Amino acid sequence: MIKVSVMYPQQAGARFDHAYYRDSHMPMVKQRLGSACSHYTVDRGLAGASPGSAPAFVAACHLFCDSIEAFQAGFGPHAQEIMADVANYTHIAPVLQISEVVVG
Amino acid sequence: MIKVSVMYPQQAGARFDHAYYRDSHMPMVKQRLGSACSHYTVDRGLAGASPGSAPAFVAACHLFCDSIEAFQAGFGPHAQEIMADVANYTHIAPVLQISEVVVG
Repeated sequence: MIKVSVMYPQQAGARFDHAYYRDSHMPMVKQRLGSACSHYTVDRGLAGASPGSAPAFVAACHLFCDSIEAFQAGFGPHAQEIMADVANYTHIAPVLQISEVVVG
Repeated sequence: MIKVSVMYPQQAGARFDHAYYRDSHMPMVKQRLGSACSHYTVDRGLAGASPGSAPAFVAACHLFCDSIEAFQAGFGPHAQEIMADVANYTHIAPVLQISEVVVG
């Protein structure tokens, strides 16, 4: 199992519409990916290591897929539509990472 | 539900013993935290956004707890022991983040 993480770095003053991300963008992504994505999770950053400090990432999602190839096959045909929707909730450029799920 | 993420930035040449992290460190952390942590996950970074690129984080764990206070109460008494074990698998300084689990 692999995990595609899309993480939005905290930026002072930058907009991030958490409700749109949760209620509209992510369900759309899951619908387009179909069976290529078994499930996904969504995080909202609260704090860093010190109380009251800003989190490194204001929000993130994690898409769980059987393999990188399965993700690419599912995402590719819908990449343009999915990317075009990002501006509806943020202009922060995300960090994308693919990980092996060692303990799930 | 909150999630305490401990993420180790990729550093060229830096050691990270994934087997020790999975088989020794993380089970010890879970044992010490007890009921303060319902479960945890472990990732191993594979790649960044481009094929063959390095991941932002070489490894990460995510500890799921009822609240920040529950995590702090569980972690505090064992912080010294847990932190002392880190040198057994890496010298990379991690990024710690606390997030709200919006979709779990």
